[in-house]
Amino acid sequence: MKFTVNRTAFIKELNDVSRAITSKTTIPVLTGLKLVAEADGLTLTGSDADISIQTTLSIADEAAALSIEKTGAIVLPARFFSDIVKQLPEQQMTIEIVAGFQTMITSGSASFTINGLDANSYPHLPEITAANSVTIGADMLRQIISQTVIAVSNQESRPILTGVHFSLNEKTFLAVATDSHRLAQRTETLSTDNTSVADVIIPGKSLNELAKMLENVEEVELRITDNQVLFILGKTLFYSRLLEGNYPDTTRLIPKESDTLITFNATELLAAINRASLLSHESRNNVVKLLISESGAKITGNSPDVGRVEEELHVKKQEGNELEISFNPDYMKDALRSFGNIDIEVSFTVPLRPFTLKPVDNGDSFIQLITPVRTF
Amino acid sequence: MKFTVNRTAFIKELNDVSRAITSKTTIPVLTGLKLVAEADGLTLTGSDADISIQTTLSIADEAAALSIEKTGAIVLPARFFSDIVKQLPEQQMTIEIVAGFQTMITSGSASFTINGLDANSYPHLPEITAANSVTIGADMLRQIISQTVIAVSNQESRPILTGVHFSLNEKTFLAVATDSHRLAQRTETLSTDNTSVADVIIPGKSLNELAKMLENVEEVELRITDNQVLFILGKTLFYSRLLEGNYPDTTRLIPKESDTLITFNATELLAAINRASLLSHESRNNVVKLLISESGAKITGNSPDVGRVEEELHVKKQEGNELEISFNPDYMKDALRSFGNIDIEVSFTVPLRPFTLKPVDNGDSFIQLITPVRTF
Repeated sequence: MKFTVNRTAFIKELNDVSRAITSKTTIPVLTGLKLVAEADGLTLTGSDADISIQTTLSIADEAAALSIEKTGAIVLPARFFSDIVKQLPEQQMTIEIVAGFQTMITSGSASFTINGLDANSYPHLPEITAANSVTIGADMLRQIISQTVIAVSNQESRPILTGVHFSLNEKTFLAVATDSHRLAQRTETLSTDNTSVADVIIPGKSLNELAKMLENVEEVELRITDNQVLFILGKTLFYSRLLEGNYPDTTRLIPKESDTLITFNATELLAAINRASLLSHESRNNVVKLLISESGAKITGNSPDVGRVEEELHVKKQEGNELEISFNPDYMKDALRSFGNIDIEVSFTVPLRPFTLKPVDNGDSFIQLITPVRTF
Repeated sequence: MKFTVNRTAFIKELNDVSRAITSKTTIPVLTGLKLVAEADGLTLTGSDADISIQTTLSIADEAAALSIEKTGAIVLPARFFSDIVKQLPEQQMTIEIVAGFQTMITSGSASFTINGLDANSYPHLPEITAANSVTIGADMLRQIISQTVIAVSNQESRPILTGVHFSLNEKTFLAVATDSHRLAQRTETLSTDNTSVADVIIPGKSLNELAKMLENVEEVELRITDNQVLFILGKTLFYSRLLEGNYPDTTRLIPKESDTLITFNATELLAAINRASLLSHESRNNVVKLLISESGAKITGNSPDVGRVEEELHVKKQEGNELEISFNPDYMKDALRSFGNIDIEVSFTVPLRPFTLKPVDNGDSFIQLITPVRTF
């Protein structure tokens, strides 16, 4: 293997692929980056067994100025190789297997020779055919992920809850996540005719990594099999394993009726909750209280060791019963952040039943649900 | 105590004073910020017993819009208070002692009541008179600190080496630091007539904190006593304790003669050493080798487990003997960074004796010295 490439173009692909590579793996070859030089281009692969990312630089890509002198493949220690590539002195660099798995990296007057591993020992990526495929806008997918992934569980005691449940049918795309204390649900109508039907649970960790790669992408094609999902982002392939098992039925968790309805600006409410949480974080019980009365709404927090906080909220609209309800302010903060600077309707039944937050202008397509805390 | 103040102006002073406050202190009252409201202004004090910082907002300062309604003093939990102040909703805030040491902070519709401590339990700052005082430019002091503090020791086994040795006489200001593996020395001629003579060792940690506060300051007055130094930065006072003991005689460490002299651009050499250190950091011995021969200079590194690195250096001027010398690249990186993008002369005697780095254009006013590593 021997090729010469523009460092800037190479580093861009290297950064994407490196998202999948961790030093914490139990499979030594996965701490490496796989490079395959073929006649028409160079393929970079990284994987942590859960997520795999593969991208290709073509000899037709002018910015990459890629010239393949000899085809071949190698696995190089990812972090060390990446550090070297980023600090080389010139714009061009040449990578060449010189003896066995020893690989030389040269740029200008600097040259490194590092020990690689046999590319044949690198695991194969899953084969995924085009059956069960749907294409959606990258911005929409990024929004769906950011609005739901906040509610996945971090606890391995119920692994199924560490993922987001995606349901796809002819007309709609539904994403739900819950850690059993809160829930986030987003529904999107598919604009094009879709014939694929799928029901999968994608690990939240995979979606967080994927979301970071969606910035300069227009559209994403999803291809789904029984145990893998592939996201195609232009020339970059993002594979994630799926979580196995049945996702709990979440539809019955969302209250259908309401006894108290109140409208806030999400950004204003978030600022008030942020302030109140300064106090609750100092105290043993991370709880704040919302009081809704005829005269308006108020956030309070009280911890004898630390102090008290009280803030009148700016209410935009209010109807229904008076109410006193306590909740974890961190769940509220995550939920409020997911709306951005819009007006939201908060809907309560009784103090110990979950309450919901929805955009005023967007019906039921996006719901955040929070379970209150019992304080008496 | 009751006062109202502009938050932005208050936060600026709060940030400066907070540099001295740590939660890791064994004296509980020092985790607090001391506030003293007097008829003509508000004083903020923070201290970790080694460093103390005090600053004053005057009622004459229009941007601060300070109005003192009632004089008094309190100590408030610094981090918690600071978090609250930074997140309050309005530009103005009011701070009032409401009962005992309970203090109320209000801004717009938000109000906090937090538990303070008796200001009488806060330690007194040292009294320092104007004897032994010298005034120097803040930019020059910041440069002297950044060029020398890199060489202080981090090891408490010889506490005296954790400080920078400052010697002041009628004409010159000399700063030296060494951790016994390397040394940094900076001499500055005082432009004004100075009558103070002093010889003190200031903890490197104090100087690092001080340097961060010198950005928007013109001049600094130093006042020195037996066990304290006070830096006066406009309305802000920065106190540091001094290290006790005799600093080792460093003058005889700097070689007077040279057998090999070579000139590099400091930034170019730094880039090459950075690259070579990528390899040395992966290997057990953190060492790189410099080879000087008639045909030029070359950096090499070799670790059988990890790989090899080799780079031809761009030499600007060269005279004297051929040489092969090994050193810790991290010491070299610290030293090179302290020069910025200028040409430097590196001066060697024999492979096991210290070598020096000096600016080509600035004589002996600034010297970095590095002790080589024995590799055979």
